[in-house]
Amino acid sequence: MRCCECGFRPRRSICSPHASDPNPPLDSSKPRARGSAQLARWARARRIRSGRMPSTKMQTQAEVEAQQFSEGVAAASDGVSDGESDDEDGGVGGKCVYMVSDGTGWTAEHAVHAALGQFEHCLVDQRCSVDTHLFSQINEVERLMEIIRQAAQEEALVFFTLADPQMAEAAKQACEMLHVPHINILGPITDALHSHLGVSPSGLPRGAPGRPSTLSKQYFKRIEAVEFTIKQDDGALPKNLIQADIVLVGVSRTSKTPLSTYMAQKGYKVANVPLVLGIDPPKELFQVDQDKVYALTINPVFLKSIRLARSRTLGMGPNSRTTYSDMEHISKELEYSRKLFLQNARWPVVEVTGKAIEETAAVILRIFHERRSKNHMPRISRRY
Amino acid sequence: MRCCECGFRPRRSICSPHASDPNPPLDSSKPRARGSAQLARWARARRIRSGRMPSTKMQTQAEVEAQQFSEGVAAASDGVSDGESDDEDGGVGGKCVYMVSDGTGWTAEHAVHAALGQFEHCLVDQRCSVDTHLFSQINEVERLMEIIRQAAQEEALVFFTLADPQMAEAAKQACEMLHVPHINILGPITDALHSHLGVSPSGLPRGAPGRPSTLSKQYFKRIEAVEFTIKQDDGALPKNLIQADIVLVGVSRTSKTPLSTYMAQKGYKVANVPLVLGIDPPKELFQVDQDKVYALTINPVFLKSIRLARSRTLGMGPNSRTTYSDMEHISKELEYSRKLFLQNARWPVVEVTGKAIEETAAVILRIFHERRSKNHMPRISRRY
Repeated sequence: MRCCECGFRPRRSICSPHASDPNPPLDSSKPRARGSAQLARWARARRIRSGRMPSTKMQTQAEVEAQQFSEGVAAASDGVSDGESDDEDGGVGGKCVYMVSDGTGWTAEHAVHAALGQFEHCLVDQRCSVDTHLFSQINEVERLMEIIRQAAQEEALVFFTLADPQMAEAAKQACEMLHVPHINILGPITDALHSHLGVSPSGLPRGAPGRPSTLSKQYFKRIEAVEFTIKQDDGALPKNLIQADIVLVGVSRTSKTPLSTYMAQKGYKVANVPLVLGIDPPKELFQVDQDKVYALTINPVFLKSIRLARSRTLGMGPNSRTTYSDMEHISKELEYSRKLFLQNARWPVVEVTGKAIEETAAVILRIFHERRSKNHMPRISRRY
Repeated sequence: MRCCECGFRPRRSICSPHASDPNPPLDSSKPRARGSAQLARWARARRIRSGRMPSTKMQTQAEVEAQQFSEGVAAASDGVSDGESDDEDGGVGGKCVYMVSDGTGWTAEHAVHAALGQFEHCLVDQRCSVDTHLFSQINEVERLMEIIRQAAQEEALVFFTLADPQMAEAAKQACEMLHVPHINILGPITDALHSHLGVSPSGLPRGAPGRPSTLSKQYFKRIEAVEFTIKQDDGALPKNLIQADIVLVGVSRTSKTPLSTYMAQKGYKVANVPLVLGIDPPKELFQVDQDKVYALTINPVFLKSIRLARSRTLGMGPNSRTTYSDMEHISKELEYSRKLFLQNARWPVVEVTGKAIEETAAVILRIFHERRSKNHMPRISRRY
């Protein structure tokens, strides 16, 4: 593990002189000669643009997709879920981003992940890379200060979601003192709600004593939805389709299962029915309210690649592969599903090719709420 | 449906004169006599404090918990997942919050949900209430303007996550013109990353043509994790425990299943093993790497209430209820699990009483990464 002060920023390293000192001074022993955090950011940006990072010119969409796709399929075929988590990757560290929370930290993670999507043109081909570090349940000023000192050493950008106003203020002051660029993610949102509701925020992080329990109606609804969805997966118990809020229909590898559990986490009871060539779907599929059935479709070339990867992961022999991932078979199966979808005109046909689970879920839930609320402008409404 | 201009703000209503006009002027026909958005917010806050909203004095923690708990259990026993979504509730509308996105809108939803947690002391007992409306995939200025006009009519607070800088600027200008309080959630985060990485954001919303596909290694890892977790649920296929990243152990109703699928969505392969009095756990539980086993425990009174609600939902007869939710049986079962946990000292014992799934997941994943990375300060790291 190399020291952070040498200029090379390794991942997950703690400089031992600082780490071993329980109370090092806030104004680090080697203060940087910079006027302000803003100036430091500009200087850093200039430094990077002037050569420390390769050109950021856009690849063509085709180049990017081809690369992404082959990477994804290769990853799937290599059995990526072998227990290796991303933080086990070796290699030179990327730009460092810290997320610090006195709660779970999931809000910071979600927002930063979404914002990083704006830099995919650079991240996907690893012309630049980013290492994020999420520190959750940071409820003591001492630990907060230690993290910010470490952020200064690693030249990290710090995002924080600290509900406790004293902790948020301490983080701000320490970051300013050490010239660490920082953003309070929840602060402006909470302030705006404060003005809007005319009620002061509690200042208590999630799970803190004194904060009301979150085990509300919504909580139980969500647990029941998850349990229902798991039991219904892959066409199991078709007699229960009537209890589902949403029924997904599609051939194998159209993301039915991950889509179902994703929406179940949001409180929807989702069932899915696989379409298999030569096997009729259960009669219940046509007996339930047809407004809750959603048909999934996918590009055949894309499907073939996914199925090939899947066959390898499952260790299928060459004969099984022929049936499952053979182009002729795939075309026939998709043609069969297309015909079925045409015969059932109430089912919206949702294209999943190249979409992340969240994107397909957004499309389905938008239609779901549109059909229920008959709003002029489709929206997903919720009462708190 | 009553018109918004009468002063009463109904939920999900669109004033037809405006809705039917495809291009109404931005400066609405009835501009409000307000100096600035800030002034308007203050005025509104004063108005609410002066009587339109009941006192916001804090309840005791015991009062809040008792109410929350009885509400939760009642909801569970009523079978809350009957397909009724929250937006079907009747009643007078609460304060209105709009979330507008040119992508899925999940980031705005997540952040606003987290920030609303700061107002739980007022929300849980319905002294105040909030109606959120999520508008996703808003990619045309005309639709954006229509939503902001509607927000002005409903006196809504608007949060937006608009990746397209022109859309973000248009939203800002329209909100300022109509005195609509507004917050750009992703803007400051993206700007900070721009400075930090020295790379310009693409300005393309998720799923837009030209934006690289998100079907990366992480995507396939996540799908495989979800599928693994579903197959392993409730002690199925113990021979596969060795493939899991995380194994959860606990008696019935300690959130094993929803916890498993929540963590699976984050890319972890999770298996769970139920502990049942009188049935030995599978031998594989003790053969796998003991560092990946997590024990769940719960307060017996809390567990009894959850099980009673569960029995009602499942329509169990009185005899079944006696065994499953009887206090003596619960105490014995928890005592058995406590002894087992003591015998297996490597298993961290995680308390789930009163915790939301996200909170328990944060605790488990923090220990998981701490054990793997041996960091001085526990963190969850990820390479982008």
